[in-house]
Amino acid sequence: ENLLEIAGRQFQSRLMTGSGKYTDFDRMRQSIAASGCQIVTVAVRRVQTNAPGHEGLAEALDWSKQWMLPNTAGCKTAEEAIRVARLGREMAKLLGQEDNNFVKLEVIPDPHYLLPDPIGTLEAAGQLVKEGFAVLPYINADPMLARRLEDVGCATVMPLGSPIGSGQGIQTAANIRIIIESAKVPVVVDAGIGTPSEAAQAMEMGADAVLINSAIALAQNPPVMAKAMGMAVEAGRLAYLAGRIPVKERASASSPQTGTIASTVS
Amino acid sequence: ENLLEIAGRQFQSRLMTGSGKYTDFDRMRQSIAASGCQIVTVAVRRVQTNAPGHEGLAEALDWSKQWMLPNTAGCKTAEEAIRVARLGREMAKLLGQEDNNFVKLEVIPDPHYLLPDPIGTLEAAGQLVKEGFAVLPYINADPMLARRLEDVGCATVMPLGSPIGSGQGIQTAANIRIIIESAKVPVVVDAGIGTPSEAAQAMEMGADAVLINSAIALAQNPPVMAKAMGMAVEAGRLAYLAGRIPVKERASASSPQTGTIASTVS
Amino acid sequence: ENLLEIAGRQFQSRLMTGSGKYTDFDRMRQSIAASGCQIVTVAVRRVQTNAPGHEGLAEALDWSKQWMLPNTAGCKTAEEAIRVARLGREMAKLLGQEDNNFVKLEVIPDPHYLLPDPIGTLEAAGQLVKEGFAVLPYINADPMLARRLEDVGCATVMPLGSPIGSGQGIQTAANIRIIIESAKVPVVVDAGIGTPSEAAQAMEMGADAVLINSAIALAQNPPVMAKAMGMAVEAGRLAYLAGRIPVKERASASSPQTGTIASTVS
Amino acid sequence: ENLLEIAGRQFQSRLMTGSGKYTDFDRMRQSIAASGCQIVTVAVRRVQTNAPGHEGLAEALDWSKQWMLPNTAGCKTAEEAIRVARLGREMAKLLGQEDNNFVKLEVIPDPHYLLPDPIGTLEAAGQLVKEGFAVLPYINADPMLARRLEDVGCATVMPLGSPIGSGQGIQTAANIRIIIESAKVPVVVDAGIGTPSEAAQAMEMGADAVLINSAIALAQNPPVMAKAMGMAVEAGRLAYLAGRIPVKERASASSPQTGTIASTVS
Repeated sequence: ENLLEIAGRQFQSRLMTGSGKYTDFDRMRQSIAASGCQIVTVAVRRVQTNAPGHEGLAEALDWSKQWMLPNTAGCKTAEEAIRVARLGREMAKLLGQEDNNFVKLEVIPDPHYLLPDPIGTLEAAGQLVKEGFAVLPYINADPMLARRLEDVGCATVMPLGSPIGSGQGIQTAANIRIIIESAKVPVVVDAGIGTPSEAAQAMEMGADAVLINSAIALAQNPPVMAKAMGMAVEAGRLAYLAGRIPVKERASASSPQTGTIASTVS
Repeated sequence: ENLLEIAGRQFQSRLMTGSGKYTDFDRMRQSIAASGCQIVTVAVRRVQTNAPGHEGLAEALDWSKQWMLPNTAGCKTAEEAIRVARLGREMAKLLGQEDNNFVKLEVIPDPHYLLPDPIGTLEAAGQLVKEGFAVLPYINADPMLARRLEDVGCATVMPLGSPIGSGQGIQTAANIRIIIESAKVPVVVDAGIGTPSEAAQAMEMGADAVLINSAIALAQNPPVMAKAMGMAVEAGRLAYLAGRIPVKERASASSPQTGTIASTVS
Repeated sequence: ENLLEIAGRQFQSRLMTGSGKYTDFDRMRQSIAASGCQIVTVAVRRVQTNAPGHEGLAEALDWSKQWMLPNTAGCKTAEEAIRVARLGREMAKLLGQEDNNFVKLEVIPDPHYLLPDPIGTLEAAGQLVKEGFAVLPYINADPMLARRLEDVGCATVMPLGSPIGSGQGIQTAANIRIIIESAKVPVVVDAGIGTPSEAAQAMEMGADAVLINSAIALAQNPPVMAKAMGMAVEAGRLAYLAGRIPVKERASASSPQTGTIASTVS
Repeated sequence: ENLLEIAGRQFQSRLMTGSGKYTDFDRMRQSIAASGCQIVTVAVRRVQTNAPGHEGLAEALDWSKQWMLPNTAGCKTAEEAIRVARLGREMAKLLGQEDNNFVKLEVIPDPHYLLPDPIGTLEAAGQLVKEGFAVLPYINADPMLARRLEDVGCATVMPLGSPIGSGQGIQTAANIRIIIESAKVPVVVDAGIGTPSEAAQAMEMGADAVLINSAIALAQNPPVMAKAMGMAVEAGRLAYLAGRIPVKERASASSPQTGTIASTVS
């Protein structure tokens, strides 16, 4: 069946969204609902520290409808990320998801491009897997790193399309294709998607899911964009299953160029 | 309201499809239904001449549900196209669409790439407009030609994304953008679209509609691809209305990089 | 031999440059010399009207070293262009090129994108060919228009890569490839090239020459950019002749992955 | 001055080439000479094991004219690569380059795409730097990995454009741009370049050098392609120094659209 399965858990929707950057909680709730997503990621550190815009955020969502994906945004080292992941598990429990062991692992030392550190990410992933987490690591689109992470037991790999929030789309398509071809765990394209066409493109390439936050939260009309993203992800998945036409060098007429119109029309 | 309007007639769907290349009529009907389209183009010349695969084609569709868009495929000169357009009007009448004066104008002397002749197209368009047709000309993505066609009274312009049936997607994006910016009539991207992401891309650019045939009819599973195309066109239109995020050089974090986790986690 | 031949005249260099937009004549002369080009286009109308920056321009170049390519920039209709072409021929004669019947034909009604009018261009081309001109028409990258122009006797076709002076590079590659494949006259990519890599790309695709003005004249250091462009055009041509490697899906090691290092290194 | 400096050594040419895949040594020598390169990489393991096509290879080149860059191709782990690097240093000494401590570090476990392992590469790099090597690591275009390698003392970073020998060009441009912006050591684009335009593109982006092997050795005419590559690298570098024009949305005429031709021509 056409379900997304991560760490033994099944989801209908292949769109994951985030909870950051919305101007207010109402708009966040409307957008998440409109998107049809079933997984929402939350920045544990920001929620815990009541960072601006995150006060009460975790409570603002209905966690009986959404599966929480705690993330370690804001962590610069493996150690930080490990500690924050543990806090995230507690947070999920407090909010009623007793068996939620998911963590979106982000180890990001770079303030300009918010690109993840491959070494720290692998190190933290190994530790968190040992502690029983279902680890979804955010990574550069490096096929060999993806394999390493799979080897230590990660539940997915989450290669980036382009820098977080940049809206540049999928600049790493060649590498993501290789990751998809090789990976035995789900591949989730995370970061950089700016439009529904780019979300659909990821799915058509064979990605198992996409995660989108800024492109929805910062659109001029977030709920409408959220709906568009949900539809595009589904359209891209359907197209992947339906089997696209091959790309051809030349044109191909709708029917044989035979017969003469002359006899008919004169 | 968010309706497509061509020559005074309104349509809910912004996807147009074709009737060629399907392996059988059942599959064609299922695909057209799954796509949600309201306009279907039919090759007058092929129907009239009972070309292989076209016998009974016009009768196979339910024209109380679909608006017919007779096309002049197979015509190499303006004269041929004009004659075939007139036949198309008769055909639409015979099939119950008394007031249908639409014609998709194709003047295509080139057998390899099936690219349209700008001179013959403009000449035929001028004549057909005089005869009361709503002319939808298939053209190379040439902004100046589009303007000429608008000036002689065409109802839309239909620039091609890439050669018919090639599935190369939108290779002419730069010119199509200029056409959309300048045109006062609807712009329909026609030919070359191979995937839902490409259909969504056209709509996000501001196209008013897209026409897709081969990418549906020749997909491994046409009805599923048809559904995907319908969703993608709607998603792309919604995204256009919702206002996408700007593309940025750098990353943009989901929240201020302030606060220290240290105090929280230690 | 590897020479560019246009209307029976042979040239060593496959780079054409322009004379507009330079801050001063010295810089123009240095740049043209550094580029190694043998054909320089001059806007007849601007020279004739002594438009700002064009006073004395025609006299500033050494026409014993450069072949003049008078152009009809600034003309909005076929009629204007025809008249200006005739003036250009006189201008070339006055400057010592008695047998110069070349004209770069530009019919440009659009002030925003400076895109050429296909209808007016074809009309003027036909007339100018009859008057004995070697006509080099500036056109949108429309293969069918290119064929029409070839049929009326043009000496080359000059499809644009992207709008004049935009530096967007070759946005019309798919169509230019078709033009190159079909044309029997030289294909000169004109307008839009911003960098040497883009100039080389045009030549690798099989273009016979490129024309570059803004990318040189408005570079921070025009003579150095001119030299770079000259080298890139030559490199691209050599690569076209040398036969590039095919693009492959996968990697290809530099040598068989056989033998074990173990025995050697232990 | 415009010299490439790596580990204190200066080079005029910014093109590095390889010695693999040539059909014979004469063609290799001609191509290397035609390219104007000063650094040639040699697969230590293949030379040492006399792998097919590598017998006598190291002796076939004139190492008084070329600087040898021994590489660790064929090594799947850090340990192997370290041992082969040491052998490479011996090899360079035997061939007369007493002070050559360069090594192109390749740790490649993947047989399909020949993509490097980031973890093993970093590990080996750290060890080799300690042993006094000037380490030039071949890496995926991961800016954070590049920083890690710089931090442990590598002499350059060598991000790949696309899989080795694929000729896909620079598929990783977005990440390479970030690496160039951040790196304090020279950035050498290695692998994937198929044409001179792609080589020039890398240089225009600000890369310090490029390494090209397959695109030359397997071209239909290797010496001519080698010459083209050498010219393109120089052209790209000059363009980088000369300062390209900005990319603009719209056209920009060569001169003000003022004055009327009417008065002149009538």
